Amino acid sequence: MKAYLGIDLGGTSIKMGLVDQQGNILHNMENPTPVKEGYHAVLKLIDQMAQSLLRQSGYAWRNISGAGIGVPAFIDFQKGILVEVVNLGWHNVSLQADLERLWHMPVMVENDANAAALGEMWTGAGKGVSQLLCLTLGTGIGGGVIINGEIYHGANGTAGEAGHITVKPQGGRVCNCGRTGCLETEASATAIVVDALERVREISAGPLQEEFQRTGTLTARTVIQLARQGEPVCREIIAKAGTILGNSLAVMCCLLNPEMIVIGGGVSQAGTILFDPLIKAFNSAVLPRAAENVSIVPAKLGNQAGMIGAAWLVHRQAQ
Amino acid sequence: MKAYLGIDLGGTSIKMGLVDQQGNILHNMENPTPVKEGYHAVLKLIDQMAQSLLRQSGYAWRNISGAGIGVPAFIDFQKGILVEVVNLGWHNVSLQADLERLWHMPVMVENDANAAALGEMWTGAGKGVSQLLCLTLGTGIGGGVIINGEIYHGANGTAGEAGHITVKPQGGRVCNCGRTGCLETEASATAIVVDALERVREISAGPLQEEFQRTGTLTARTVIQLARQGEPVCREIIAKAGTILGNSLAVMCCLLNPEMIVIGGGVSQAGTILFDPLIKAFNSAVLPRAAENVSIVPAKLGNQAGMIGAAWLVHRQAQ
Repeated sequence: MKAYLGIDLGGTSIKMGLVDQQGNILHNMENPTPVKEGYHAVLKLIDQMAQSLLRQSGYAWRNISGAGIGVPAFIDFQKGILVEVVNLGWHNVSLQADLERLWHMPVMVENDANAAALGEMWTGAGKGVSQLLCLTLGTGIGGGVIINGEIYHGANGTAGEAGHITVKPQGGRVCNCGRTGCLETEASATAIVVDALERVREISAGPLQEEFQRTGTLTARTVIQLARQGEPVCREIIAKAGTILGNSLAVMCCLLNPEMIVIGGGVSQAGTILFDPLIKAFNSAVLPRAAENVSIVPAKLGNQAGMIGAAWLVHRQAQ
Repeated sequence: MKAYLGIDLGGTSIKMGLVDQQGNILHNMENPTPVKEGYHAVLKLIDQMAQSLLRQSGYAWRNISGAGIGVPAFIDFQKGILVEVVNLGWHNVSLQADLERLWHMPVMVENDANAAALGEMWTGAGKGVSQLLCLTLGTGIGGGVIINGEIYHGANGTAGEAGHITVKPQGGRVCNCGRTGCLETEASATAIVVDALERVREISAGPLQEEFQRTGTLTARTVIQLARQGEPVCREIIAKAGTILGNSLAVMCCLLNPEMIVIGGGVSQAGTILFDPLIKAFNSAVLPRAAENVSIVPAKLGNQAGMIGAAWLVHRQAQ
């Protein structure tokens, strides 16, 4: 039985899965990304992980049809080059060609948010849906636009960069992209932390203040946890992010008219505290007919979506 | 030599062209739309126009391969039904089937803004471009999204409804769609008129005031004309529309990453008075890489784009 390697290369960790032809992960492993050691060290670690994953699983290389890899990068798909990999500090690297040379099998590269979208389409929340918009709410906000069952890349691979839609034209926070008021500066995990650090100064007691006193900082995970426990300031912060997201999704829906919108990433763990205000804002801002049959649902595959979607890239070629 | 009928059915007039296989209009005619007389009167007039167009041009019905028709409607493409034709007051009419029954040849229907986009792609400003976004700035604002050389319809035919993107969440004007602050309430010909009527009260002399005194009203055409002659209030009004459009196009560009954005419709006649502030706002609001190679250009086909694009629908089928 043939299988695929699905790889999710991020700024924090490298996740690798052995994925079967139905999109199930048979075995997987995760290692911290040696960012500081540079491109060749990362390449070497990816190779070592593949060797050891195969050894552990009892699969031979001849049973692997190919590998897919999702990367937080702008990709030139015509040339197969990672033009810019912000979190890793790489420019113009030929990851696809380098891995093909190493492994003597087809390797496909894709943007990480797009890979996650494909994973959700293959075996997750978007199973069977062919017009799909997928947002990943993490440190940043990634988007994947699926049209007729395929990722839509646009003119130079930048389609679906939903995180960089301007949502606050005046007085927005500074974004990694060099501009201000992008969706990801106002509604990502990072935005939630900034909001919480601003709000914690105004309050003198309670669990948010205690957490801040104890650890000297706040994380999105903490804010979400406290919100789920009913802490009102944290609930407000999450609701604000939900409202901003709902308004943005209404704009995206007028343009793309998807069948389904899948919301994944760490922030989506907030559940109804995020989704209720999000859907409320969406419904009041969207052109009714453009949203007639759209469903807005949480992602199902968690942090495995990227591996599964990366594997789909080679699965699709093999069909 | 085979040819096509290209029809642009609007709330004001019906335009019909005999279009050759290169997208040239050989003969054409225009009649006011008998809106008040209802669907069957319109259908009858369309048939009469076709008969007389063929007679005039010396073409026989056997030399016509089919007809395409653009309609300002939400269309159910699976069922071939015009779900809602706002300007004509029709609901759930089977225009395609009715014309096929009448003419015994293939008939294709499309949304009017989409037809205009296809026309510009076939022989106009977007010739040879396959990832194209086209906006038509008229009484309303229509949008057409072309992906891989085809109109993208989305889940229920509503993709590209750029006119109903919310651009003014608070205090926007009421839109036909029932909501407020849509792109078309803030930057269409109608918006320009509303702006001018508001501004004319503040000024006591000058050509705008004179025109208003003389005619008792203002039109977008007048405002554009005066702006081109240097009237400062009119220039400001057009520039404001340009800025709003530029900001919205930046959002659309992050999602769709088109190769080209074509701007047509009456308002685009304002030329650089519109395009300069539009491009300035676009450049400062857009994710740089998403706009790297995009060109924003005026449409070329004027009010013939709809006929030519409608003809393309049957031309494409004949390929």
